[in-house]
Amino acid sequence: MSTQKNISLIGSGLVGSLLAIILAKRNHRVNIYERRPDMRKNTGVAGRSINLALSDRGWKALDAVGIGDEIRKIAIPMYGRYIHNMDGSTAYQAYGKENQAIYSVSRGGINCKLMDLAEQQSNVKIHFDERCDVVDLKTNTAVFENTITKKKKSIQSDLIISSDGAFSAGRLAIQLNTDRFNYQQYYIDCGYKELTIPAGENGSFLIEKNALHIWPRGKFMMIALPNFDGSFTCTLFFPFEGEHSFDALKERSAVLPFFKTYFADAVALMPTLLDDFMNNPTSSLVTVKCFPWTISDKLALIGDAAHAIVPFFGQGMNCGFEDCTVFNQLLDEYKEDWEKVFKAYEISRKPDSDAIADLAIGNFVEMRDLVGQPKFLLQKKIEANFSNKHPEKWITAYSMVTFSPEIRYSVALRKGKEQQAIMDEVMALPDIEKKWDSPEIESLILSKL
Amino acid sequence: MSTQKNISLIGSGLVGSLLAIILAKRNHRVNIYERRPDMRKNTGVAGRSINLALSDRGWKALDAVGIGDEIRKIAIPMYGRYIHNMDGSTAYQAYGKENQAIYSVSRGGINCKLMDLAEQQSNVKIHFDERCDVVDLKTNTAVFENTITKKKKSIQSDLIISSDGAFSAGRLAIQLNTDRFNYQQYYIDCGYKELTIPAGENGSFLIEKNALHIWPRGKFMMIALPNFDGSFTCTLFFPFEGEHSFDALKERSAVLPFFKTYFADAVALMPTLLDDFMNNPTSSLVTVKCFPWTISDKLALIGDAAHAIVPFFGQGMNCGFEDCTVFNQLLDEYKEDWEKVFKAYEISRKPDSDAIADLAIGNFVEMRDLVGQPKFLLQKKIEANFSNKHPEKWITAYSMVTFSPEIRYSVALRKGKEQQAIMDEVMALPDIEKKWDSPEIESLILSKL
Repeated sequence: MSTQKNISLIGSGLVGSLLAIILAKRNHRVNIYERRPDMRKNTGVAGRSINLALSDRGWKALDAVGIGDEIRKIAIPMYGRYIHNMDGSTAYQAYGKENQAIYSVSRGGINCKLMDLAEQQSNVKIHFDERCDVVDLKTNTAVFENTITKKKKSIQSDLIISSDGAFSAGRLAIQLNTDRFNYQQYYIDCGYKELTIPAGENGSFLIEKNALHIWPRGKFMMIALPNFDGSFTCTLFFPFEGEHSFDALKERSAVLPFFKTYFADAVALMPTLLDDFMNNPTSSLVTVKCFPWTISDKLALIGDAAHAIVPFFGQGMNCGFEDCTVFNQLLDEYKEDWEKVFKAYEISRKPDSDAIADLAIGNFVEMRDLVGQPKFLLQKKIEANFSNKHPEKWITAYSMVTFSPEIRYSVALRKGKEQQAIMDEVMALPDIEKKWDSPEIESLILSKL
Repeated sequence: MSTQKNISLIGSGLVGSLLAIILAKRNHRVNIYERRPDMRKNTGVAGRSINLALSDRGWKALDAVGIGDEIRKIAIPMYGRYIHNMDGSTAYQAYGKENQAIYSVSRGGINCKLMDLAEQQSNVKIHFDERCDVVDLKTNTAVFENTITKKKKSIQSDLIISSDGAFSAGRLAIQLNTDRFNYQQYYIDCGYKELTIPAGENGSFLIEKNALHIWPRGKFMMIALPNFDGSFTCTLFFPFEGEHSFDALKERSAVLPFFKTYFADAVALMPTLLDDFMNNPTSSLVTVKCFPWTISDKLALIGDAAHAIVPFFGQGMNCGFEDCTVFNQLLDEYKEDWEKVFKAYEISRKPDSDAIADLAIGNFVEMRDLVGQPKFLLQKKIEANFSNKHPEKWITAYSMVTFSPEIRYSVALRKGKEQQAIMDEVMALPDIEKKWDSPEIESLILSKL
């Protein structure tokens, strides 16, 4: 069965580049067509500078093709959340057990590295500045327009895989060729803007290096992730409209007073804050769900093209990489019978990508609001305490999603809901603050499981 | 404030025609542009022949503009569900109290009547065969292409209201003019096909006239609604794929054996069944949710254009008519300040249309599966019993939706879920079959409320 295929990938983003490596190692010929210029040649337009949190599902996919160690060189471990409260006090919550961490990587940095690694495969070629115009499924042809020369070319291939993000050209082709295409795009009321905390003297880190910093403020929040040069990339997640919103900070004069009120400790470390705020774009946050993801053995969607999610669980990239893991496993299982692989892939991944989409929306509330509340911190302490005593009986939803790639997202969502129902009962007990680590609470939780 | 507006309506369907009457009575000038030919001149293409169930929300809207009695002339009351079981036995469930009914109307019939009534207003004109091509919000202009002459014309008006159904041209205009447009289209796995039970001799009804007939078969069902001429319009709701599905009945020879097995009593009354099944189209069932529905004081969506739902609660038309009721009330409340009316309208109606969409999906399970199960019938009996004794404490979700237009759909959905949680407990009691009407059960329910 294992015959070499001529495969077109649309998009050389994170998932497209990783998939190209996987397919190349399976001896297929891969051509990637990327809309943007080669970001490695011009760091000024290196995609969005946002940082991403790489965790175990991502590492699993990278290690499976032997490139994990290459990526570890550009990743900074973050062992917990570092909470910055309004009153200047701080708190720290470990993400997991000792040495469990999520890893800060720059989106541009890891993307460049993955493209390098892809091009090291002799049977991968990346074509830049090629925007996908239309996909014709009758002839297995994709038409690309060169964004510089404006010349169009038709590329015929054995199969097409569309890894071109939330506004995918491949998805449109499926939509136009499917009688009953289920589709959802959902924008949350918040957008985001990137800001920066520069490095201190000699590239020193001005706040704790090995943590993800959060300034939770109820309806909005700022976060900061470390970069290798000592700087932090900050992201303000903020309503578009309302009392505290991008809309309310249109005037230059309104910006600093707002930040000084809500992010006093950070402002002191952000000398370019005002210009950054006025000049950097405001971006929106969309969840995209759709189905089907594939058409016979002709076309498949992968990554954000199939399931764009909001960033609050740090799983967008990890979920896309896990798509690659599953895809690779199914190619083994079905001995590269592509039609069967495509079908099994979409059926397997759909419930899990739906689950992480919902978990990510839910985590926004947790990050911007709950992590700043004593009751929530107590609940996390009780859960950690119980989990330490009965590690086989209680893995938190966060841990399942982040550190347990053997547990499917859909299982993590379901078990997380069951755990929350138990914790709702526990937290409603009178005097829970006093008896939180008592045998009574331990037996109560045990009895509910 | 109340100055005459020049209003373009896209679509002279049920909701568009009713809205035209409302706006005309408020002294506005209304031009309706309808894609299809005038269905009153050519009954052969009178839209879909499907029957609809008109209930209290619909009547309220019709009576408010004084046309309820005109429509009553073409409506047949159905006082309950008439269940046809596999074994040939039947059962009857009243929809509500004595004299509470839903009303069978032919979609084409009521639409023709509403267009007649609209045109009786001197300030309403309907233009047929005019397909909306594009809406330009900068100039308040809609472009229509005549489907016969192929000539295009640009119509400028003070405001545009799009009542053009699930695949609305006006909605596309909002989508293209809104930064963050939330949109969902969801197809269920079942489609439908219309069949018929003709009248008996002298226009007699061959099955009970004043009921909605259901043949529940678990994963599929057939229903039948009465027509004035003694016939019944039957609809088979059936999976597209699987063991019992449209896919599995592609061969002419497979159709009658299937029907004889699952709908034996009906087949005997359906002489044209085989030809109807082979010749009539198979249609799909989509739920559409979106937001926003309006752009400043320029454009608004109404009816299916804003919120298409599946037909299993019999509320698609009723919900669209209730849109008109709310719209009319808001025009009073805001003294025809259109921007405020549009904004208040979409904010008021969005949660209710979302709720009825979810209720309608849920009712499919009830109709095709649960109504055939003894346990479900017992639950309905307990609820009816309790509701009779404590009418102020328990109105069933069905009753709230169908017979209580003063209760919002969103409230009906929430209260229905609360009631279901109570009934889940009640039905789990041992020996519930024996003590279903005991004081013990009554007090238990009272204690939970």
